[in-house]
Amino acid sequence: MVWDLQGANVIVGQSGGQTSVINSSLAGVYETAMQRKAGKVYGMRFGIQGLLEDNIIDMGEYINSDLEIELLKRTPSSFLGSCRFKLPEAERGNEIFEKIFEILNRYEIKYFFYIGGNDSMDTIKKLYDYGEMIGTDIKFMGVPKTIDNDLAMTDHTPGFGSAAKYVNTMVKEVILDAAVYDAPSVTVIEVMGRNAGWLTGSTALAKGPDCSGVDLIYMPEYPFSLEDCLRKVTEIQKKKKFVVIAVSEGLCDENGESISAQAGNATVVDAFGHATLSGVGQFIANYLGDYLKCKVRSVELSSVQRCGSHMVSRVDITEAYTVGGAAVKAAMNGESGRVVILKRVSQEPYTCITDTFDVHKVANVEKKVPYEWINETHDGVTEDFLKYARPLIQAELTPVMVDGLPMHITLTTALDDTPGKKRWN
Amino acid sequence: MVWDLQGANVIVGQSGGQTSVINSSLAGVYETAMQRKAGKVYGMRFGIQGLLEDNIIDMGEYINSDLEIELLKRTPSSFLGSCRFKLPEAERGNEIFEKIFEILNRYEIKYFFYIGGNDSMDTIKKLYDYGEMIGTDIKFMGVPKTIDNDLAMTDHTPGFGSAAKYVNTMVKEVILDAAVYDAPSVTVIEVMGRNAGWLTGSTALAKGPDCSGVDLIYMPEYPFSLEDCLRKVTEIQKKKKFVVIAVSEGLCDENGESISAQAGNATVVDAFGHATLSGVGQFIANYLGDYLKCKVRSVELSSVQRCGSHMVSRVDITEAYTVGGAAVKAAMNGESGRVVILKRVSQEPYTCITDTFDVHKVANVEKKVPYEWINETHDGVTEDFLKYARPLIQAELTPVMVDGLPMHITLTTALDDTPGKKRWN
Repeated sequence: MVWDLQGANVIVGQSGGQTSVINSSLAGVYETAMQRKAGKVYGMRFGIQGLLEDNIIDMGEYINSDLEIELLKRTPSSFLGSCRFKLPEAERGNEIFEKIFEILNRYEIKYFFYIGGNDSMDTIKKLYDYGEMIGTDIKFMGVPKTIDNDLAMTDHTPGFGSAAKYVNTMVKEVILDAAVYDAPSVTVIEVMGRNAGWLTGSTALAKGPDCSGVDLIYMPEYPFSLEDCLRKVTEIQKKKKFVVIAVSEGLCDENGESISAQAGNATVVDAFGHATLSGVGQFIANYLGDYLKCKVRSVELSSVQRCGSHMVSRVDITEAYTVGGAAVKAAMNGESGRVVILKRVSQEPYTCITDTFDVHKVANVEKKVPYEWINETHDGVTEDFLKYARPLIQAELTPVMVDGLPMHITLTTALDDTPGKKRWN
Repeated sequence: MVWDLQGANVIVGQSGGQTSVINSSLAGVYETAMQRKAGKVYGMRFGIQGLLEDNIIDMGEYINSDLEIELLKRTPSSFLGSCRFKLPEAERGNEIFEKIFEILNRYEIKYFFYIGGNDSMDTIKKLYDYGEMIGTDIKFMGVPKTIDNDLAMTDHTPGFGSAAKYVNTMVKEVILDAAVYDAPSVTVIEVMGRNAGWLTGSTALAKGPDCSGVDLIYMPEYPFSLEDCLRKVTEIQKKKKFVVIAVSEGLCDENGESISAQAGNATVVDAFGHATLSGVGQFIANYLGDYLKCKVRSVELSSVQRCGSHMVSRVDITEAYTVGGAAVKAAMNGESGRVVILKRVSQEPYTCITDTFDVHKVANVEKKVPYEWINETHDGVTEDFLKYARPLIQAELTPVMVDGLPMHITLTTALDDTPGKKRWN
């Protein structure tokens, strides 16, 4: 058991999709490592891909005041940049791994932290496995994040709560917008989430004393049928003027074919085999519009649903910071090849603690919404889902407002003041 | 000169597109009328269309505490509902006008307020003209609102500042999202605004010490050329990895044909002859994507850009309230057939006062961005535009957060507690 990092060097990277609070985890890793007497805390630009290109910064040159830490927490998207780069299987003699370890050794790195979703945990797993093979003393830890909330073993992932809070804030505003004319209408809201319906399901949170809520929620856990959707909308229209539907971008029909593909959208596939999905809301709206004699529109919540920092959950941003710090402490205590997870130890009052788990059991596993949390008609969620999700959107962290807009910290700004350094763009 | 409303009844309606702060104007009319000893303050459901159907509520039954006034200010979209209903020309004996005045007389209305854009001012103009013809003593006043900022005679319109603040908040977040991968990309952001480029032009405000800003801004004041856009993007890509473009939904080519129509979108035309525009961003992105060897995506900011209340400008929401109150005071002093306008009397510190103007000179006139405020290459705005717009996005009014989400006040809620009343939905 050691009590601090004894001047050892640390490296941290961010990978996969952006979230509103992924930089809060970065702040958690950075600040905790500095407090625990790390030597240097390096940052990989653009994840493991940047590391391979020796694109590495000394975090201390850019973040070195309390204000900068606070701005980092409140800056959405990945401060260090990201990548979707899949490592090969760990094999002795593989030149990619040899290069990575050569660079890590050159920078005298003893602790390696990678903030990401289940694809990024695949990177941690393989680096750990290779490290074991060659007998390294470098510790590899995963720090969880994803708005999709589809990481195994953890109660939930940092990033999900803020995305859910923002999506529901927008859903409430979209519903007010939809309710404004004295004429029937259907609004289809497309929500992010590839194979897991967590974020789409969370739109059930919008319903309350001041909001009639979303009428139908379609998650990718069950096959989607256009005909069934049309039938249900027609039924609801008998009682209610405006109908609001939330659909996951990842919906598939009963043959498992993605609705996005049926919408005729060019399919771009990333290194992990995941397709870029889009156009599902518009496709469904077009179908309904062909049959219904009313205005049907589709609303895409845009990329800001994953990286809007102006309406974050304080619970979420605090937990994001905490898991970053917990990763440092676990590594300092000798853990490696593990990922930090959140464990809900109390529901009322909501309390989560951190723990760690074998990364081999987390990498590449997708956690979907349990069937028992989806209603019998497969178009909504149960009370248990709401009980699970509601604590995660609580409380706020207001942006630092400068001249009317939220202020962020970016490497462009920082690098502008540091001649000779690479520019962000 | 009278000092109060002496128990006379007032009616107020909202019309046209929604904004984040149109209910703040409603609060301004309502609270000022009550303070000035109005009898009843009635609200038309769904504007003049609802009035014609005798769909009228007594505002005092729904808004009768300071908290409810505060919630009303913070609730986006039109509390009373809206319409797009064009009155015929005012002619003696016309049965629509006869019906309207019969209803107004039945409710003993002496003051009529209509909150809207230039189409809604057309309604005020015609009601005033008809009233003059028949010698009514009812006062008709227009209260300006529109995110498009295209109303003549006023320095700006309430609703624009908040839309600009929200759009720029999102633009900054979209830019951070775009900057995240170490690969070239183009992001096309589609912004609302039919024939006037105010909101699209305002995206220039995002640029600052922490943000590289939007690279090209295309407003509908000048014809748009796909070839020219492609050429400029290619040029910028030589210096910068990610290119961000803001385009107005209302762009037309040099033959005056709308890009939205070229995008093959079904054109829905409202009562005032305005087409629903969409797909411009995606169309331009598709074109660029065919020529550029990089990721090109389009981001629609969705309807929330006009009615997001979670990031409003305090300057704007305060002015929205003020113009509502000013309309009541002007009418009380005998004015009719006029619209409240904002006059900027000082730039530093920014100060606007209210005045009134003949509605005949405001109705149906569209104020576009002056050519001298658009740069020489027609892809950006000048320093003067920025000086004009920046004060309008200053300061915030935070939502009332309940259980993790902004709380609103709606007639659904209110009517739930009032048996026998019509339901919102």
